[in-house]
Amino acid sequence: MTVTVALPDEATLARLSPAPAGAELVVWRAGDPPLGRRIDLLLPSYGVSYGFLSHLDPAEVGAVQAQSLGYDGVADSLPSGIAFCNAVGVHEAPTAELAVGLTISAQRGLADFARARGAWDRPILPGLAGRSVLLIGVGGVGRAIEQRLIPFEVRLTLVGRSARGDVHTQAELPELLPEADIVILAVPLGPSTTGLVDGAFLDRMRPGALLVNISRGAVVDTDALTEHVRDGRVRAALDVVDPEPLPAEHPLWTLAGATITPHVGGNVSSMSERIDPLIREQVELLLDGKPLKNIVIPA
Amino acid sequence: MTVTVALPDEATLARLSPAPAGAELVVWRAGDPPLGRRIDLLLPSYGVSYGFLSHLDPAEVGAVQAQSLGYDGVADSLPSGIAFCNAVGVHEAPTAELAVGLTISAQRGLADFARARGAWDRPILPGLAGRSVLLIGVGGVGRAIEQRLIPFEVRLTLVGRSARGDVHTQAELPELLPEADIVILAVPLGPSTTGLVDGAFLDRMRPGALLVNISRGAVVDTDALTEHVRDGRVRAALDVVDPEPLPAEHPLWTLAGATITPHVGGNVSSMSERIDPLIREQVELLLDGKPLKNIVIPA
Repeated sequence: MTVTVALPDEATLARLSPAPAGAELVVWRAGDPPLGRRIDLLLPSYGVSYGFLSHLDPAEVGAVQAQSLGYDGVADSLPSGIAFCNAVGVHEAPTAELAVGLTISAQRGLADFARARGAWDRPILPGLAGRSVLLIGVGGVGRAIEQRLIPFEVRLTLVGRSARGDVHTQAELPELLPEADIVILAVPLGPSTTGLVDGAFLDRMRPGALLVNISRGAVVDTDALTEHVRDGRVRAALDVVDPEPLPAEHPLWTLAGATITPHVGGNVSSMSERIDPLIREQVELLLDGKPLKNIVIPA
Repeated sequence: MTVTVALPDEATLARLSPAPAGAELVVWRAGDPPLGRRIDLLLPSYGVSYGFLSHLDPAEVGAVQAQSLGYDGVADSLPSGIAFCNAVGVHEAPTAELAVGLTISAQRGLADFARARGAWDRPILPGLAGRSVLLIGVGGVGRAIEQRLIPFEVRLTLVGRSARGDVHTQAELPELLPEADIVILAVPLGPSTTGLVDGAFLDRMRPGALLVNISRGAVVDTDALTEHVRDGRVRAALDVVDPEPLPAEHPLWTLAGATITPHVGGNVSSMSERIDPLIREQVELLLDGKPLKNIVIPA
């Protein structure tokens, strides 16, 4: 039996070559002319929008191995008969690292210093040590953020989908929000998290508190956040926004108290060191006739 | 016996009032008219230059409790007969937090994103996870940086004054520098560290590696660093520079690959929560007739 793996570009092909015996690696993207044989595993580009999935034919594609961790909206596009695997283990570290970096940056004024090159003004700023952090989301990214924050001498409160151990639930947010100096969003986008951060949520936050979002833009009501940041009620450090790209003329870009990075949570050069072993493992599973790992939407 | 403590401003006086029985707190700064009685403990302002110490009279001042951790140059100014205590335990956490923040910021391009407001360019950058970090200095700040870096999945190598356990010595730097993606300076300024980072040091660093300095500016030869950053040989993230303030027209401010903050390692609003208990403890020791703690230069 031959296993056919479609890769998005020559660079990925070069990294994964040579293929193990029985596997054939080809460069093929959705929209390319049909290959003439069934693709057992399709690897889309990193950062691609998943709308293209609806055009795939389950007779021609067996499974999709995404390069991303989030897969909001995929279930709506993915034809029945094609399995979808996400990239668990690839993005947690870089995304958590960015979350902590954005948090320290906001608490220590690093974006302002970057823009004020040449000035020697030394404000006293809130800092991170001694602050209370409310971390919403205890999946892979949330736990990776938690692990990284522990040595920073913060008081950490966790919120997850269900209460267990020291994890609180979203139902407790009205009581938890006023206690937090910093709120970090690390939830997947879904029915219970879309628009989670609305005007009422922001109203419960401490005056001057910081909202950090490295999850998905639509977890936050952008208009409500813009209004609260403009009023100086809250500050924000965002790697994800709704919509993306955020239009260049959007007021959030230039409001004091807001810092935005253009959805680069996973954009590190070591990503290939993390995704390549996952792809190789999936190919071996296919060759052995075993189920793929990380299937988040079954065929 | 009455213990007299001179404080730099009314705000500090208010925070420390009421004084314990037997202690008198006054606002008095060097240069003010003589108090008319001996000062047992003098607290200078935070961030003050220590040149004023040379004008103190040991008949009038018993000891100085600095608000800073570093005390380079103090021994040259301090009159014999006056003890000098530094602020151990006050600045380690905020300085280490800034060091990690500057490191992530440089590895993830946060300063560039801050300046490119409105753009949606998503470069692939080096990141921190998986990188090798050479941490030079294993005192209080160095150890605080080490603790904070451990969860970030870095390969950490330590350099200290003397070899012990897993700590290497400065003599090994020529072999260690080419192995590091990131070099962090956390040493006190002294004879063995002044100018430690010169052209030869920078030449041994990996092409494109990052130098982070949160210790003292004079540990680095600014001209040599400027030249290496201009040539794209190394990158730099600096909270301290030589001289300070760095003149507004200095090329380091605007070179791609350099990020500078204006010596704000300890500038956090929680500083008073950390220095006040130290001052109270010193006052109690004086009232009990016991030796002060943190004496780094005896009377």
